[in-house]
Amino acid sequence: MSDKETSIISQLSLYCPSNSTVRYGIGDDAAVLAPEQGEQLICQDMLMDGVHFLCAQHAPERIGHKALAVNLSDIAAMGGQALSATIALALPRDRITTDFIDRLYRGFQALAQRFNVAIVGGDTNIWSGPLVVSVTVLGRVHGKGAIKRSGARAGDLIYVTGPLGDSYASGHHLDFQPRLEEARHLMDRLTLNSMIDLSDGLGKDLREIAHQSRLRAALWAAHLPLRPSLQSQPLEEARRRALADGEDFELCFTVTTEEARLLDSMRSELPSLYCIGRMLPGTGLAWETYPGIFEDITTQGYEHKI
Amino acid sequence: MSDKETSIISQLSLYCPSNSTVRYGIGDDAAVLAPEQGEQLICQDMLMDGVHFLCAQHAPERIGHKALAVNLSDIAAMGGQALSATIALALPRDRITTDFIDRLYRGFQALAQRFNVAIVGGDTNIWSGPLVVSVTVLGRVHGKGAIKRSGARAGDLIYVTGPLGDSYASGHHLDFQPRLEEARHLMDRLTLNSMIDLSDGLGKDLREIAHQSRLRAALWAAHLPLRPSLQSQPLEEARRRALADGEDFELCFTVTTEEARLLDSMRSELPSLYCIGRMLPGTGLAWETYPGIFEDITTQGYEHKI
Repeated sequence: MSDKETSIISQLSLYCPSNSTVRYGIGDDAAVLAPEQGEQLICQDMLMDGVHFLCAQHAPERIGHKALAVNLSDIAAMGGQALSATIALALPRDRITTDFIDRLYRGFQALAQRFNVAIVGGDTNIWSGPLVVSVTVLGRVHGKGAIKRSGARAGDLIYVTGPLGDSYASGHHLDFQPRLEEARHLMDRLTLNSMIDLSDGLGKDLREIAHQSRLRAALWAAHLPLRPSLQSQPLEEARRRALADGEDFELCFTVTTEEARLLDSMRSELPSLYCIGRMLPGTGLAWETYPGIFEDITTQGYEHKI
Repeated sequence: MSDKETSIISQLSLYCPSNSTVRYGIGDDAAVLAPEQGEQLICQDMLMDGVHFLCAQHAPERIGHKALAVNLSDIAAMGGQALSATIALALPRDRITTDFIDRLYRGFQALAQRFNVAIVGGDTNIWSGPLVVSVTVLGRVHGKGAIKRSGARAGDLIYVTGPLGDSYASGHHLDFQPRLEEARHLMDRLTLNSMIDLSDGLGKDLREIAHQSRLRAALWAAHLPLRPSLQSQPLEEARRRALADGEDFELCFTVTTEEARLLDSMRSELPSLYCIGRMLPGTGLAWETYPGIFEDITTQGYEHKI
């Protein structure tokens, strides 16, 4: 570690919130966490300049926010709550001004504080390559257990937690709020059968639920919630985008029709919830154009590339 | 995620060992781990092409090995045992042959299996930049607690677990075995007061123990174990290198003189253990040239850069 890296790390520690799960955070070879009852969750993502964000264009706060948020979204997708995070950085030599790093870390900090996530460690490097950020998040499984992609049942209704498509152009992919609160709300009240977060586009991610659950997912085109910025597009194109664009970071989950009735009674608490289709025997993804009439969907998901 | 990334991930799952701490590994938004009694450890490192390894020169197996090993070394430095790992990759587009990725993952796999570490998840990306590997490791704290850098006491003797210096030229930085077994052995038998793994060079890392423990570390030059490849160098230069070269990845720890006597009786079990100095009131790092005669050391540690 260079002296520059050491000095950055002491600067960064100021931005690292703690919580009751942390015995010892930044400053040693590893962080020490308090024992946890119940199952744990762990996920790690890596975001790279030119692929997931543009260093020359996007504010550092937004990059920091996104790098943590994509992992919090993964924890939410298991129905869990996030507890702590580690952050590894490859900082480009020509960008490591105090201001840039401060602002990057303020992005991490604001989001971590919002969801009471401790930042407990990581690694800070300087190199001549582009900015790379890799965040790992630990979480707690809800008392009802982790919600997997493979648990959907025939007859389940399919829901999403918000409008879809056009995440890149609208800036949503940088500024989205991970759906941890919605996940807790749903987990506390209902039994979810399967869940995923929409990172690769509904078309690909819902196909994953269908594949892992050995079912077919049937979508109702008229019910797909479209991001307002898509509403100037021809309807068919807007629907294609809602299906194929990536990085919506909404939750997509399935529940039995009995649970769906409960969900209906919670509408005022979760206003941006949309029922978009149902799970049926079979495989793959289809439009259900009329009840019982299907049209296979072949569209693939989005390839993350700005 | 592109289809190429998806296909790489299914290829990689074959190389991911599991263990009893894993409820659900690769294949969902996050991995699910069984509840653990006692405190946990978490650490995350990031290794970049041109800084920590040379993609064009080093075998992919060695790069995979190193990326996991540096984290296992951090867990060892806390006196803990490693349990599971996640691996995030930014793969350069022009290198993503099946052979390269297979071999990279075989490096992870062989080391993970050796220490019964499960590989439970991560993230695989393709980009036009250089190879970046970030590994996160979870571990279990030993029943005696985590060994911190700050626990050294005046009078403690300082030990290292192997020869120092010339790690880069000798290839040791790629092929080293993390000292998890030695850590367990020491923890089972002794009370360690402080410990660190030598990644930035003894000069810098031992200074960190001294700083955090608010003591002075006094080194005995004649006792510094030199890597055999340094023995052709003038003695003074070899010692400077043992102090300043980085990435030895040996453990450096301190114990009371009473514990040191116990350690002496374990010599046959831990043959490559060297007593190199002692902790005293004061600050910083010094040579103890004669008993009670000190000469301050100003050398800095190594800056990771191949």
